[in-house]
Amino acid sequence: MTMKQPEPAFILVRPQMGENIGAAARALLNFGLTDLRLVQPRDGWPNQKAVDTSSGALDHIPSIPVFDTLQNALSDCHFVYATTARHRHMNKTVRNTAGACEHAQSRTHQKIGFVFGPERTGLESEDLALCHEIINIRTNPDFSSLNLGQGVLLLAYEWSKIRGNKNKSVHSHTREIATHNEMSAVLSRLEDTLEHHNFFRAPHLKDNMIRNIRTMLMRAEFDAQEIRTFHGIISALIGHKVHKN
Amino acid sequence: MTMKQPEPAFILVRPQMGENIGAAARALLNFGLTDLRLVQPRDGWPNQKAVDTSSGALDHIPSIPVFDTLQNALSDCHFVYATTARHRHMNKTVRNTAGACEHAQSRTHQKIGFVFGPERTGLESEDLALCHEIINIRTNPDFSSLNLGQGVLLLAYEWSKIRGNKNKSVHSHTREIATHNEMSAVLSRLEDTLEHHNFFRAPHLKDNMIRNIRTMLMRAEFDAQEIRTFHGIISALIGHKVHKN
Repeated sequence: MTMKQPEPAFILVRPQMGENIGAAARALLNFGLTDLRLVQPRDGWPNQKAVDTSSGALDHIPSIPVFDTLQNALSDCHFVYATTARHRHMNKTVRNTAGACEHAQSRTHQKIGFVFGPERTGLESEDLALCHEIINIRTNPDFSSLNLGQGVLLLAYEWSKIRGNKNKSVHSHTREIATHNEMSAVLSRLEDTLEHHNFFRAPHLKDNMIRNIRTMLMRAEFDAQEIRTFHGIISALIGHKVHKN
Repeated sequence: MTMKQPEPAFILVRPQMGENIGAAARALLNFGLTDLRLVQPRDGWPNQKAVDTSSGALDHIPSIPVFDTLQNALSDCHFVYATTARHRHMNKTVRNTAGACEHAQSRTHQKIGFVFGPERTGLESEDLALCHEIINIRTNPDFSSLNLGQGVLLLAYEWSKIRGNKNKSVHSHTREIATHNEMSAVLSRLEDTLEHHNFFRAPHLKDNMIRNIRTMLMRAEFDAQEIRTFHGIISALIGHKVHKN
């Protein structure tokens, strides 16, 4: 088996609001990620507002290193993506969120970095120059206001989803539906009862009506308990008295 | 060409904080979605805190209807997903975020509803009983603190992403199932009739039994003709005489 890929680093460059740092930490931990790094946070570090908005995530993340330059923050990374909201003329591959995560996870063994710019201005050209590729999180062109925490959330979600899909794909659906025999028994009883109650007015339509009723009820895929409930419903409607003490 | 699928409705049930309603509106509009509905918002509506956190999204969303019950909020929906953080023993299919959006978009022509519960407590059992399936947004089992706005964001993101990918031909799901209102009417009639026939022996079990019956029959996804057939079955079983010449 292959060695596990190291956890990706999420690097916030010159983040302005502590709230957004806390939200980013919370978003990462929601998807089991903890490698958060800061470059020149405007209000210093630690930051009480970050603690307040992290919902306790900062207690679970051992330490958040602070760097003076993006270059230093990226020192151990092999491959780095810059996130931008705007399209720019840059000679770099631009990927969407999912595409970037797929691509990053195909780089087994490599340490991946995801870089986010300051809230208002985004990354500067010299920051982008340190990154290999661009991630453009596609939003409504007429209203694009993802904040920093939301951008981190979407990327963490995609990373975690794609990693999860690699291990196991389909969610197993464990309902134990009734056997064909059990279902058939309750349907036959319903049909006999309907016959007794003159439901099938026109004999030549009866077979077709029965097929339709079977189709509509079999689609429900009753389990054993539900079969019993349906028997109970038939009994109640045809007026079998319930025994009360 | 097929008719375009209507935009899905995002329904917030008893949301507590205006901030989260604003964040939800902003998240939706980021992905070009605008059908946001509220059921009994704690602090009433409109709400200044929602305006403050919506980043202007509320100016772009024409109106956000407020309903007294989830049932009323869902009246025009064909197929409804409940979002839950917890796993419960419910007889409903559970999908992850992407799986649910794939599934929903295969239901061409149908109006889809995504239902979100109150921040602290999530959806009640009676809310869940009105929904066809469950969406579980998978997060870190040791730290799961997605807030309401983040949950809406992830679902809106997946919806938009899958719709974007969908220029390819996807097999269409052509059955025209009944609206929530039509289904609800026949279920209410069945419940009233069962009540009249003393089906609910123990009063303290009644709510639970009704939920189970709704769950098992909603799973069948009746179309309009099948609803009429089911009305006919009830009428026949309780002994309404069929008019013969």
